[in-house]
Amino acid sequence: MTTTSTGGPSGAVGQVSVLGLGDMGSAIAKAFVDRGYRTTVWNRTASKSAPLVDAGATAAATAAEAVAASPLVVVCLLDGKAVDEVLGYVDAAVAGKVLVNLTSGSPGQARANERWAGERGAEYLDGKIMGDPPYVGTPRIMFPFSGSRRAFDAHDSTLRELGSVTYHGEDAGLAAVEFMAQVAVGYELLIGYLHTLRLVQAEGVDVVEFTERIAGSVAAYPPLLTQMGKAVKNGYYPPDLGPLSVQAALMDDMIGHRESIGVEAVRMREVKELMDRRIADGHGGQGFSSLFELLARGR
Amino acid sequence: MTTTSTGGPSGAVGQVSVLGLGDMGSAIAKAFVDRGYRTTVWNRTASKSAPLVDAGATAAATAAEAVAASPLVVVCLLDGKAVDEVLGYVDAAVAGKVLVNLTSGSPGQARANERWAGERGAEYLDGKIMGDPPYVGTPRIMFPFSGSRRAFDAHDSTLRELGSVTYHGEDAGLAAVEFMAQVAVGYELLIGYLHTLRLVQAEGVDVVEFTERIAGSVAAYPPLLTQMGKAVKNGYYPPDLGPLSVQAALMDDMIGHRESIGVEAVRMREVKELMDRRIADGHGGQGFSSLFELLARGR
Ligand SMILES: NC(=O)c1ccc[n+]([C@@H]2O[C@H](COP(=O)([O-])OP(=O)(O)OC[C@H]3O[C@@H](n4cnc5c(N)ncnc54)[C@H](OP(=O)(O)O)[C@@H]3O)[C@@H](O)[C@H]2O)c1
Ligand SMILES: NC(=O)c1ccc[n+]([C@@H]2O[C@H](COP(=O)([O-])OP(=O)(O)OC[C@H]3O[C@@H](n4cnc5c(N)ncnc54)[C@H](OP(=O)(O)O)[C@@H]3O)[C@@H](O)[C@H]2O)c1
Repeated sequence: MTTTSTGGPSGAVGQVSVLGLGDMGSAIAKAFVDRGYRTTVWNRTASKSAPLVDAGATAAATAAEAVAASPLVVVCLLDGKAVDEVLGYVDAAVAGKVLVNLTSGSPGQARANERWAGERGAEYLDGKIMGDPPYVGTPRIMFPFSGSRRAFDAHDSTLRELGSVTYHGEDAGLAAVEFMAQVAVGYELLIGYLHTLRLVQAEGVDVVEFTERIAGSVAAYPPLLTQMGKAVKNGYYPPDLGPLSVQAALMDDMIGHRESIGVEAVRMREVKELMDRRIADGHGGQGFSSLFELLARGR
Repeated sequence: MTTTSTGGPSGAVGQVSVLGLGDMGSAIAKAFVDRGYRTTVWNRTASKSAPLVDAGATAAATAAEAVAASPLVVVCLLDGKAVDEVLGYVDAAVAGKVLVNLTSGSPGQARANERWAGERGAEYLDGKIMGDPPYVGTPRIMFPFSGSRRAFDAHDSTLRELGSVTYHGEDAGLAAVEFMAQVAVGYELLIGYLHTLRLVQAEGVDVVEFTERIAGSVAAYPPLLTQMGKAVKNGYYPPDLGPLSVQAALMDDMIGHRESIGVEAVRMREVKELMDRRIADGHGGQGFSSLFELLARGR
């Protein structure tokens, strides 16, 4: 790819600054350099800019100088605390810029950053990164964005140099909502899987062979999830994995087995309790998705 | 399919009895009848045999009579309690038979059933059912089996009439281990997903659209699981989803966000605590899979 899609010889676009050169920030800066962007970089520990300068980037002496160099400023630091600190150095230099923050953090932090930018005459886009540094510049890494629609439309093609890009709405917090929700579902699966590996291991089953079978099962879950999402939206809960009355009959055995073998059963006890409540309420013919009705509603 | 693969005109095979005609037992009996097996059925509530008799099955007046009718006896009841009760009626009639129990239950129950059968001169196979009644007779329903290898080899082709069949070992409990482990991992994913739907809903995100994106992410998990299974087996934990030090930096934000919005964070707090312990022990460069090291080992 070249810069032709994002800017011409005027250089008004095709110019970007990257603040933060950890593993991820470096991969991002490198992707821009490789695609011909005039790239300015800054990092607290200045030595980390050397490989990028070798590749063609310009190192700025301060964060404010890096911001001044380009209309589009990408920030990728460790966490929200680091962002607050670096934005403190930048301050008024951000006026007139589009600030894109790719640092992991909460929706609240994104909304606070947006206010901060707005007060200084900058536009704000919040992005989150779902994938690893080696995948930057490929479709295998995902970047949900939210915040200024105008800024997103203006810099869409630049942002797409980094990977698969989605836009989630004007509320700057929505990219973080997406990110945290996606990570949470993944971690729920993975920690549940790891606990259950303890069980299969204790029963003398090969963990690699079991994992192959689980991987096959997980590959079959997307249609079930789709069905459950619709069930939740409609408030109509067909017996997805069989009726709750049949599913619940298994839970005491499962919990008893886990406990007898010394493997934790926190979620399985919760699921059983929720199933029992649904059944007691006369919903034993519904599916697993109906447990949603009993979960803390959020505010 | 016909019975030719499992028996000839002698009728020594191609003959099966099914005890329990709930949704699942009826589907199983129907699959055998449809494939030309001489099928004898029994159910506590006798009226449930009517549709099967119409289709060509023979109804037995008692469980013991049903067992006497065929060399292969398939039991599919609500739970282990029901199995104990029905096996009590059968008792000595089981001598010389192959008893296949497809009722959901624990490894301990399977092992106890095997002892019970052995004491009465019968061979025992335990099977579990992963799938719904409408899929019986198709490859989309899975039946892990364990117990007598000889009985499995002798009746393999009959059992394969029901769906995809796997054999997990002579220990009769292993089919139940597989089943409970598979169900547990699925439930962990699904209950985590439902909790997180409360979060996305509270943030004004469409639950069906979010689910479509999650379904896409879940479809990409099998290679990661494969990698994690190997990591656990080898005790060598590469930074699968990034190093723990980077992953952990996100957890306080995620937990804080869930709590601020009134969505539970039980597993996320656990994951954070485990990550912190790994990092404190000097393993911050390892991946999520290394949390396995800290989980209750099982016995
Ligand atoms: N790596 C991944 O696999 C991955 C995947 C998805 C998302 N992410 C996200 O991407 C972001 C960056 O991750 P990374 O892998 O690049 O982390 P990293 O390699 O640990 O780099 C952290 C960066 O933050 C800077 N920093 C930390 N505290 C600072 C402070 N107080 N003031 C100024 N700069 C500070 C560091 O500067 P110094 O060099 O001076 O320490 C460094 O540039 C994180 O939010 C992470 O969650 C990473
Ligand atoms: N349905 C599914 O989607 C599904 C999926 C996977 C696995 N399974 C497993 O398959 C097994 C059967 O499920 P199902 O759907 O067929 O359940 P079901 O429709 O509720 O039928 C239960 C069966 O158990 C019998 N039963 C219950 N208690 C009994 C007792 N004390 N003595 C004698 N018979 C008794 C019932 O007889 P009556 O007719 O006289 O009540 C009926 O035949 C369960 O272990 C279930 O976990 C089911």
